[in-house]
Amino acid sequence: MMGFTLNTHHQWIARQLLDLGYRIDRQVSVPDEGISIRKAVAAALERSDLVIVTGGLGPTSDDRTREEIADLLGMPLKYSDPVDQHIRDCFSRRKRPMPESVLIQAWAPEGSEILMNQNGTAPGLWIQKSSSEIGKTKRLVLLPGPPRELYPMFSNQVKPLIQKELPLEVPLKLKQFHVVGLGESWIQEKLEQSPLHKWMDQGIDVGYCAGRGEVTVRLIQTMADQEMDLEKASAIVRTTLGRSIFSETDATLEEVVVQALRQKRLSVTVAESCTGGFLAHRLTNVPGASEVFWGGFLVYSNQSKQQLVGVSPSTLEQYGAVSEETARELAIGARNAAGSDYALSITGIAGPGGGSPQKPVGLVYIGLATSQGAKVVQRIHDYDRETFKLITTQYALDMLRLEVIPV
Amino acid sequence: MMGFTLNTHHQWIARQLLDLGYRIDRQVSVPDEGISIRKAVAAALERSDLVIVTGGLGPTSDDRTREEIADLLGMPLKYSDPVDQHIRDCFSRRKRPMPESVLIQAWAPEGSEILMNQNGTAPGLWIQKSSSEIGKTKRLVLLPGPPRELYPMFSNQVKPLIQKELPLEVPLKLKQFHVVGLGESWIQEKLEQSPLHKWMDQGIDVGYCAGRGEVTVRLIQTMADQEMDLEKASAIVRTTLGRSIFSETDATLEEVVVQALRQKRLSVTVAESCTGGFLAHRLTNVPGASEVFWGGFLVYSNQSKQQLVGVSPSTLEQYGAVSEETARELAIGARNAAGSDYALSITGIAGPGGGSPQKPVGLVYIGLATSQGAKVVQRIHDYDRETFKLITTQYALDMLRLEVIPV
Repeated sequence: MMGFTLNTHHQWIARQLLDLGYRIDRQVSVPDEGISIRKAVAAALERSDLVIVTGGLGPTSDDRTREEIADLLGMPLKYSDPVDQHIRDCFSRRKRPMPESVLIQAWAPEGSEILMNQNGTAPGLWIQKSSSEIGKTKRLVLLPGPPRELYPMFSNQVKPLIQKELPLEVPLKLKQFHVVGLGESWIQEKLEQSPLHKWMDQGIDVGYCAGRGEVTVRLIQTMADQEMDLEKASAIVRTTLGRSIFSETDATLEEVVVQALRQKRLSVTVAESCTGGFLAHRLTNVPGASEVFWGGFLVYSNQSKQQLVGVSPSTLEQYGAVSEETARELAIGARNAAGSDYALSITGIAGPGGGSPQKPVGLVYIGLATSQGAKVVQRIHDYDRETFKLITTQYALDMLRLEVIPV
Repeated sequence: MMGFTLNTHHQWIARQLLDLGYRIDRQVSVPDEGISIRKAVAAALERSDLVIVTGGLGPTSDDRTREEIADLLGMPLKYSDPVDQHIRDCFSRRKRPMPESVLIQAWAPEGSEILMNQNGTAPGLWIQKSSSEIGKTKRLVLLPGPPRELYPMFSNQVKPLIQKELPLEVPLKLKQFHVVGLGESWIQEKLEQSPLHKWMDQGIDVGYCAGRGEVTVRLIQTMADQEMDLEKASAIVRTTLGRSIFSETDATLEEVVVQALRQKRLSVTVAESCTGGFLAHRLTNVPGASEVFWGGFLVYSNQSKQQLVGVSPSTLEQYGAVSEETARELAIGARNAAGSDYALSITGIAGPGGGSPQKPVGLVYIGLATSQGAKVVQRIHDYDRETFKLITTQYALDMLRLEVIPV
């Protein structure tokens, strides 16, 4: 709550639940204070069929969740001998002295189901309590906060309980399309002009999410017995967006490119000026990149452009480092020096300094050399420095994707 | 809400507010649905002095925040000509056709203050409305979701408004120390053995936050009129942790290194194998890097190690690519080829494949060449691929920092 730690639980749990077909209604974070915890949990119990609570189950003074929730629900705490034993075993296995204070974790609301923690001391707690006031069963599960305890407990113990206690009549169905090179508004306009619009509001929801240099289109089927419609809707998206869809899985653009190169036993090198290694970084984030990436050239200065890949001094003199001509010589020179099938080159003005009226900040030339010569594209990517690198390398990777993966 | 995107806004905003002395009461995420947005915002307005809303201001049909909140507050939407002009300018500057649909972003609740978006089209909206029902002024601010739009708008436009409209009587005071090369537990133990322990629980809170490759120590003064104590406590932290503190501001390790090189007019090059350009990427993320970074060598394969910086075939044959000897030749060869004052070299096994009993995944050699020769350090960084790159480049940057900045 103070901004020192990034909350990754929510994304992880939401993704797990969506894969099972459940939807998250709301996500709330509160400070480790009794009144905040009680208010948030009480409101959530009114709103939802299941409340998932993470964190605050440990042995220190700011771990208040177990006591506050037992009190909120009017359930007395009872000491659990199996948990007591489990905690003692954990410490003796690690041959560490056990502070008495950790045994507070053996107290559990009476009647709750205890989920033993295979990777720590604090157990999870599954609580069901019929409520006469609201005429339905209140369900909540308390889980430990550390990801290496939370993740396996959720996957192995909580998921089966959710599926048993809250069976779905109509599971959600979902398709996603990762799109590069088209803007979010343009995509929406095209899809709304397509036959897809018939299906919207008739059991198919369409969602758009603009990332940096890509847009994800999601189709969610919300009504039953329409399985064919999701398939038909997907076919329309494919027809409308065509080659701009680079992935229908979680694969990133660099993964798609490296995978295609590996399959065809083709190789690539890079000559990067303003992106300063970020293109190579993305390529080498993909396991197995060494099969397709020989190495490359960080040509940040004029001198390194000449020395490493042989850009001619007269080209630099006449057209400047940020020019179509320099991008072409960088790509061809890198391809020759590395003996690779392809070479990508990038030269531009990342900013914030270095711009001029003729060559503004954000101007960038991206080259792709093949056995047939080189093509160069001019773009204006007028963003902050890191976004400039991301959008520019996204464009370069996509040029290579379209070259390597034929129509 | 579906687990596809990690919510980093909350952490970032909480951090900004804490630095100003404000505390966050609650954080809520809801789906892009009218009723969910309205319920969450209405409850938040009752609870808090200021409600910060992010996302849902874009041009697509699932961007519902502006309309829902205007309706909730009973404020009619009015078309803003300055925003209209701003949107048209954005598209013409990037030489891209403008879909009419984007102009929906020019509608704003009447009476709201428009915060022009320097990095995108959707403006932020600051809304103050006195409420007769609850007898106080309701304040909320709507901000665009993309971080590169949100962050500068928050820093430059929203922070001053908050400080003007919601002045603090007793601001929190905070000091932070970014530490590299020491573990969190070690740091905590040393500080608890230091005279600092006297100040804990007496108006000075000490917090530890372990990031990837660094630890941040924070001192927070929670009581008024104790300014001197924060200074004294800071002096103890400096004495205890010494040279391992690389920054007391938000400056990153790469910023500290590039800044030091610029001041001394010294230059650096890199020869990267397993980090694949990530070290150069970090250096070139710092504006002004071109003054100190000539360029460098991506030596991913054995052949590029020989061809680009002259590692001898017999060294590769005898010791292997992942060895102290190869790291040394990489650093010295890169320094000579580039004519730089320093060269950093990295060669290792990022995994997941490529390990052996003698050379396990995570083994890495980091070299630093100076005019005096080269030193090489062996490390085991047994992490996932991206964390491996981060921790390894962190170590390399720190070697250079300790070399460039004398005791």
